[in-house]
Amino acid sequence: MNASTLLPPGTAPTQAATRPRLAVHRLPMAHPGDLSALAALFDEGAIEPAQVVAVIGKTEGNGGVNDFTRGYFTQTLMSLLAARLGRPAAELLRELPCILSGGTEGVLSPHYVVFARSGRPTADAAAGPGPGALAIGTAVSAPLPAQHVGRWAQVASVAAAVREAMRGAGIARAEDVAFVQVKCPCVTAARAQAAAAAGHTVLTADSGRSMAAARAAGAFGVAIALGELPDDPALEAAMLVDFERFCRRASISSGVEVEANEVIVLGHSAAWEGTLRMACAPMRDALDIGAVAEALRPLGMNAAPQLGAADAARVAAVFVKCEPDRRGHVRGARHTMLDDTDINAQRHIRGAVGGMVAGVLGDARIFVSGGAEHQGPDGGGLVAVIAHAA
Amino acid sequence: MNASTLLPPGTAPTQAATRPRLAVHRLPMAHPGDLSALAALFDEGAIEPAQVVAVIGKTEGNGGVNDFTRGYFTQTLMSLLAARLGRPAAELLRELPCILSGGTEGVLSPHYVVFARSGRPTADAAAGPGPGALAIGTAVSAPLPAQHVGRWAQVASVAAAVREAMRGAGIARAEDVAFVQVKCPCVTAARAQAAAAAGHTVLTADSGRSMAAARAAGAFGVAIALGELPDDPALEAAMLVDFERFCRRASISSGVEVEANEVIVLGHSAAWEGTLRMACAPMRDALDIGAVAEALRPLGMNAAPQLGAADAARVAAVFVKCEPDRRGHVRGARHTMLDDTDINAQRHIRGAVGGMVAGVLGDARIFVSGGAEHQGPDGGGLVAVIAHAA
Amino acid sequence: MNASTLLPPGTAPTQAATRPRLAVHRLPMAHPGDLSALAALFDEGAIEPAQVVAVIGKTEGNGGVNDFTRGYFTQTLMSLLAARLGRPAAELLRELPCILSGGTEGVLSPHYVVFARSGRPTADAAAGPGPGALAIGTAVSAPLPAQHVGRWAQVASVAAAVREAMRGAGIARAEDVAFVQVKCPCVTAARAQAAAAAGHTVLTADSGRSMAAARAAGAFGVAIALGELPDDPALEAAMLVDFERFCRRASISSGVEVEANEVIVLGHSAAWEGTLRMACAPMRDALDIGAVAEALRPLGMNAAPQLGAADAARVAAVFVKCEPDRRGHVRGARHTMLDDTDINAQRHIRGAVGGMVAGVLGDARIFVSGGAEHQGPDGGGLVAVIAHAA
Amino acid sequence: MNASTLLPPGTAPTQAATRPRLAVHRLPMAHPGDLSALAALFDEGAIEPAQVVAVIGKTEGNGGVNDFTRGYFTQTLMSLLAARLGRPAAELLRELPCILSGGTEGVLSPHYVVFARSGRPTADAAAGPGPGALAIGTAVSAPLPAQHVGRWAQVASVAAAVREAMRGAGIARAEDVAFVQVKCPCVTAARAQAAAAAGHTVLTADSGRSMAAARAAGAFGVAIALGELPDDPALEAAMLVDFERFCRRASISSGVEVEANEVIVLGHSAAWEGTLRMACAPMRDALDIGAVAEALRPLGMNAAPQLGAADAARVAAVFVKCEPDRRGHVRGARHTMLDDTDINAQRHIRGAVGGMVAGVLGDARIFVSGGAEHQGPDGGGLVAVIAHAA
Repeated sequence: MNASTLLPPGTAPTQAATRPRLAVHRLPMAHPGDLSALAALFDEGAIEPAQVVAVIGKTEGNGGVNDFTRGYFTQTLMSLLAARLGRPAAELLRELPCILSGGTEGVLSPHYVVFARSGRPTADAAAGPGPGALAIGTAVSAPLPAQHVGRWAQVASVAAAVREAMRGAGIARAEDVAFVQVKCPCVTAARAQAAAAAGHTVLTADSGRSMAAARAAGAFGVAIALGELPDDPALEAAMLVDFERFCRRASISSGVEVEANEVIVLGHSAAWEGTLRMACAPMRDALDIGAVAEALRPLGMNAAPQLGAADAARVAAVFVKCEPDRRGHVRGARHTMLDDTDINAQRHIRGAVGGMVAGVLGDARIFVSGGAEHQGPDGGGLVAVIAHAA
Repeated sequence: MNASTLLPPGTAPTQAATRPRLAVHRLPMAHPGDLSALAALFDEGAIEPAQVVAVIGKTEGNGGVNDFTRGYFTQTLMSLLAARLGRPAAELLRELPCILSGGTEGVLSPHYVVFARSGRPTADAAAGPGPGALAIGTAVSAPLPAQHVGRWAQVASVAAAVREAMRGAGIARAEDVAFVQVKCPCVTAARAQAAAAAGHTVLTADSGRSMAAARAAGAFGVAIALGELPDDPALEAAMLVDFERFCRRASISSGVEVEANEVIVLGHSAAWEGTLRMACAPMRDALDIGAVAEALRPLGMNAAPQLGAADAARVAAVFVKCEPDRRGHVRGARHTMLDDTDINAQRHIRGAVGGMVAGVLGDARIFVSGGAEHQGPDGGGLVAVIAHAA
Repeated sequence: MNASTLLPPGTAPTQAATRPRLAVHRLPMAHPGDLSALAALFDEGAIEPAQVVAVIGKTEGNGGVNDFTRGYFTQTLMSLLAARLGRPAAELLRELPCILSGGTEGVLSPHYVVFARSGRPTADAAAGPGPGALAIGTAVSAPLPAQHVGRWAQVASVAAAVREAMRGAGIARAEDVAFVQVKCPCVTAARAQAAAAAGHTVLTADSGRSMAAARAAGAFGVAIALGELPDDPALEAAMLVDFERFCRRASISSGVEVEANEVIVLGHSAAWEGTLRMACAPMRDALDIGAVAEALRPLGMNAAPQLGAADAARVAAVFVKCEPDRRGHVRGARHTMLDDTDINAQRHIRGAVGGMVAGVLGDARIFVSGGAEHQGPDGGGLVAVIAHAA
Repeated sequence: MNASTLLPPGTAPTQAATRPRLAVHRLPMAHPGDLSALAALFDEGAIEPAQVVAVIGKTEGNGGVNDFTRGYFTQTLMSLLAARLGRPAAELLRELPCILSGGTEGVLSPHYVVFARSGRPTADAAAGPGPGALAIGTAVSAPLPAQHVGRWAQVASVAAAVREAMRGAGIARAEDVAFVQVKCPCVTAARAQAAAAAGHTVLTADSGRSMAAARAAGAFGVAIALGELPDDPALEAAMLVDFERFCRRASISSGVEVEANEVIVLGHSAAWEGTLRMACAPMRDALDIGAVAEALRPLGMNAAPQLGAADAARVAAVFVKCEPDRRGHVRGARHTMLDDTDINAQRHIRGAVGGMVAGVLGDARIFVSGGAEHQGPDGGGLVAVIAHAA
């Protein structure tokens, strides 16, 4: 599917002179079931419910297997949209990417980013390009069988979905893609049993490990679609092994709650209009504050050491991927994240990197997600910023 | 006591031409009972055991009441010094300030800073000043009765100890003091009962609250000794109430393990020699990355956005105080630190602010301590850096 | 309201010969948003949606302020009932007590107990008593202003609601009441501000402390309605002070999510029919395994040391209240629950007492709730069992 | 080594009429560095320092890799013994089994059990048997190379140490052994590297998994020495795979802090005198309260449902092993221990089983340790009790 499938039945793209336009709303929530800020935008007419094409959010759970804030938020979002659109929530759930990361450690503030697309469908718009702007495309793959999780079949599925989302966004060239957010299914006990009953073997029946494998497959899938890695099945052996191979523009989540690969592509397209732009930079390690500067530079912003008020007002959303270094050290100094029985390592690293990025931006509304295998340099990750042109 | 009491009996300050000199060693530990790095310095002759005048460290516990990593480290340190000096560990424990903060959240690396003083005693040195350098003085007050904790009597006790430590350091003017680290006793159940039996009333019998009250009293005590606040007992009413009143150079810990106020004063004195300098800056809130720049500036260092290798090599130690904002927001964005049943609020804030400061310094060996009541602006704190002159 | 208000409009109590009957269903959930077991009972016709009069459940959150599993479950339940009854979820939310305790520590299994009432309304039934059976009544008070929380006004409000629920249940005598479950509102920052704006003063603006005060008020309210304590406003001074005063049949929760006192009364009434019976026993401390035996005895069951299969099959639901002893000891042995910075004290005690009770019952589906102030002996609590007659 | 090596040099077994006698002291601690209760026993002359042959304790850490309470306690214990015996602490550390389990969840109380042996050495005593009593023997194997961890070589090493300890205890028949406590080394990153450098391959370099493998090897080692399993290297394939094979009298810990297998054997010997007896029973699952009754029965005690005061006074120590069921259910009810990102599964199960056993005993001083692979039935574990004869 692409965004246009979310238009209410009977909506005709008749306004031939209008190009598509992306709006990005970064909204607060009082708790994971609080979508009142979005409801208010609907009530005010600032967004039409049918314009919502994707949501990326940060909820205040623990970010682990037993983090139910993601399900609670999703249920509330789909219920709101269902009521406004007069469509079944279950149907929306299958179509609309809603990618959440649990865990607002430290200064991080619970928030969600709503991507709303107005204007006529991409296919027409592409006929008459203007100067261009940030574009969005989404895709949801066919349901992924458990035996494909973490293997090349998942890589191929994600790559195909990325290409489909690029087409939906009207982005032809891989270099125009700024950032790809993916949510991948993993293996659950039930799915492993179903696969076994059908005569298939899963890579691992351990949920946690299959999530890591799925994130690796997702990162490889994006890298292949964007030409960062060759489309070579022999690369399957490099997954979770050769961390020198990574994608510079992919942020991957994995969870038990999805059955298909959900993809959001953001990039620049001459067919779109508006003032939004996006940039992404790899993060070398958890202390790589320079990566934030690097992501801000193409947007014409300089933090010295923090964004000024005018620049801060231009920022629409920030996304970060990071990892507790597997080798137990950051620039030679021992860290304790991996051996802590009290606090999960992903919670540790999100709090630390979130604090650093929030300090540079002067804003705590940062989406920070752990599990950055092959998404940026090993032990690091990446940082992406959406901002309005100056 | 001051540092000179740690000299072995019979050591005479005969070398009239020698001025005192401070050495600061930032050492790694493999676990809280690992003092091997210090033992190696003793073995190499890099430090004489008798030269150690204070230790400030960051251990990998939870930083709360049931954090025993501090006690473990202290026992191991005192045991090492006792063996090397041929003195009872219990005696050293009463004389030598060893101030530890538990909790190495996020990138923070367990480490300890050893302050070693060589050269002749201060009193003589003061007669013939040179160009000056970073000086240290320490003092331990008389044991503080439980009924004084969090009240003006504790403020006065701390202020007197700060003045004594300044004298020991040969620092005459308050403006020459760069940073004061204090460890204060709090009320325990046993001490509250003893006080009650003697007919006294304690401010609170709750350990946690008495720690906050003791930190407030410590901050006021330093502020008075340094002339930042008037020496007016009526100010007692402002403690934990009026957070506009704070000290710009005080870092206070409180714990059940001490019975007296332990004070370490660091500042600049013409009587001392060496290349070490120190600067301290208030931190407005948990996103105030500018405070780090402000603390680096007087030391001739500029992070853009991170210290370069040459400057990083000059840094000897970094100390930070911070707080989860009591009002539940950081620059208008809701944080979740205060309502988290899973992770203590102090652990959250240490991880976030530690990540930010470590990012600017490019080094994870940062001492970050929570509980910053009246130590810098409300919701913020302060950051202090020791570095060698360029 | 009482249960009959949940009957669909137009339902007439015409079956004059039918007495009311309570059914208790203890249902599993795969996660906090999983109400499929109840939906299946509706689909099978085992329960009519309109018969549901109350739900008490145990969800797998942390049980603290940031436990959103309760809200998630409640939203899902009300959504299910709304769809089945054709009524607004918001309206059901105000009428139907849904009392949840977060935290399934140790062996405790997430589950919920659905109370369904069939047969004609109580008022008629009371005219023709039979041998009697377990009866239920519910009531929701008027919204409680913040300034009343933890004060005598809340005690009186709860007592009135208990009496109303007793009438709804057709229970005339206090001694026939077996167990009362209450959920009370507490003070939130927003409510405290609203009260202040209206010229009122709240007992405390601290959420955690106001929850304890609300639980105390709830316990006193039940005790007064049941004649266990005199209806004397001077007793307000005993709340959270004199723990020798307690109710032997009250289990109180408090949370930010309710604005009124919600009450569920369970007891025996000659007007009801069926095989369910209930018994409750005070628990002296966290090791009082004898209390479980005492609660089982009136039901004709003996655990030696565990219930046999036949008896276990008779048990319909088990409810426990417990507390980490405030004095830091259990039968002279120091416990560490109150000083643990890593695990909340309520999580500790639920796991321990839950393990003990589950061991006697041979079943992990035990509702265990902390915060037992004045609900059973200090440092202990109470245990209640619903079972079918042999 | 065996216990007699702890006798001060020059101690001659001259009192030919004296048989060895075991004393068991269960002592409280105020914190992990508090050995004052043992020091007091030394001061009173109740125990001679040289009589201490083993210590088993429960400290209040998290029980995980970063639990330093075990190291802190051990350092303090060895320091105390070193001072009293005039021997180096490092030497005692290698000879004296000090086996600690971190984690006093729920009601569990921090405590340690000191095994003190008086009377003449076993070899002589065995010549003249009396009616018999509880006997103790200890052994420490040669340091175990990392490549042996979790493999048959470790099984053989443990089995040999058990046989040596049995000889030291004067226990000839396997059926007279009541309980064996073992502490095994695991693979650390450093040891794995050393092994690799020497051309060896370790089973796993993951600390957590190597601990489980070491516990399995320890359990098989005890089982073989006691004749519960055949001494067949082919059984290596059953370790961590076939959980139907288990030892009924083994409790195994594993930790980074030991390099050799440390073994404590407790059993009955006609050569010993005294009133102590011991019994051990397998625990079928985490609700198997009947196992506690089964362990008490041979000691002439019946809990109905709790031990009476007279019986409780006879109990000298209680040891429990338990596990969160790997299959995610306890008697058909889902538990949440294995998927909890906030609380480690071992902490959950210790709290629950500890609460149950403490309830039966009426005493919170229970040693409860997780990680029960092959130590009792899968998903269960075992419970052992030392008591004085009636």
